[in-house]
Amino acid sequence: MASSEFRLREGEVSIALPENYDAGLYYIGRIHTPWKHRKDCPKNARESDAVCTVELEPRWREALKDAETCTHLVLLYWMDHSQRDLVLQVPSHYGTQHGTFALRSPARPNPIAMSVVKLIGIENGRLSVVGLDCLDGTPLLDIKPYYASTDSVPDAVVGWRKRKA
Amino acid sequence: MASSEFRLREGEVSIALPENYDAGLYYIGRIHTPWKHRKDCPKNARESDAVCTVELEPRWREALKDAETCTHLVLLYWMDHSQRDLVLQVPSHYGTQHGTFALRSPARPNPIAMSVVKLIGIENGRLSVVGLDCLDGTPLLDIKPYYASTDSVPDAVVGWRKRKA
Repeated sequence: MASSEFRLREGEVSIALPENYDAGLYYIGRIHTPWKHRKDCPKNARESDAVCTVELEPRWREALKDAETCTHLVLLYWMDHSQRDLVLQVPSHYGTQHGTFALRSPARPNPIAMSVVKLIGIENGRLSVVGLDCLDGTPLLDIKPYYASTDSVPDAVVGWRKRKA
Repeated sequence: MASSEFRLREGEVSIALPENYDAGLYYIGRIHTPWKHRKDCPKNARESDAVCTVELEPRWREALKDAETCTHLVLLYWMDHSQRDLVLQVPSHYGTQHGTFALRSPARPNPIAMSVVKLIGIENGRLSVVGLDCLDGTPLLDIKPYYASTDSVPDAVVGWRKRKA
């Protein structure tokens, strides 16, 4: 989608995207959630305890072996309706200008979302998970085991959020 | 790279990849680490306290505004030398067979690595960080603020690892 199809809010800045892609992605499945429109999505993944379903394409199902032993997984998915050329954004729920890399906004050069989810169960290539906030039908890119030893930093701080609070 | 250029270990299984990509990625910068060959890389990011440098391409630098207020960041990067067609793998340091989605191996359908890093500083579009284990020159895909509230799960367990220990 061309940049001109999006409206910039005051304080938002877009740049010219590179002419070519550098690498290609496969969609490996789809995420099913209760949310059909952006306005219905929770603002972040802790706002909802809805059980969502991840449906993996048959060709990848063998790759789930032992994933069922994980209490938590990292899901990477593709925010396929997102603007990719924004460097400065003014999220409507903050009303202040921040750099794209200081935000979890889906608008980013590579709109890959990352969520840590609680695994409820796996059956026939379908994962039931809690902790998602994306639209129904979102394409899945990857599933990883979550390691507390490398992935958990309980005392991490996002300073600009703290200042606002 | 075609599957046939890789050798499978006993117990490893590869599948036919889809014919086409579904989406495209931009490399937005490069990661500089002390490790020039795979055999030199630490086995995971907590094994080394080396300060690594992330060099963002000039067009994206404005997007760093406020990122310097984060103690920790999530980096997504592209393991561009990885096999993409493995569903079952036998990592040499385990010697046992596991599904790709139960492993953090770079070999996966979309070889996007995710690391949580400690931010040391940002200067002129260069980030100094601790917590990486990748090859020098690895392409960068995304930088996100790390939120303890949604990203930190200190009691998460990877069951198959626990059984081996």
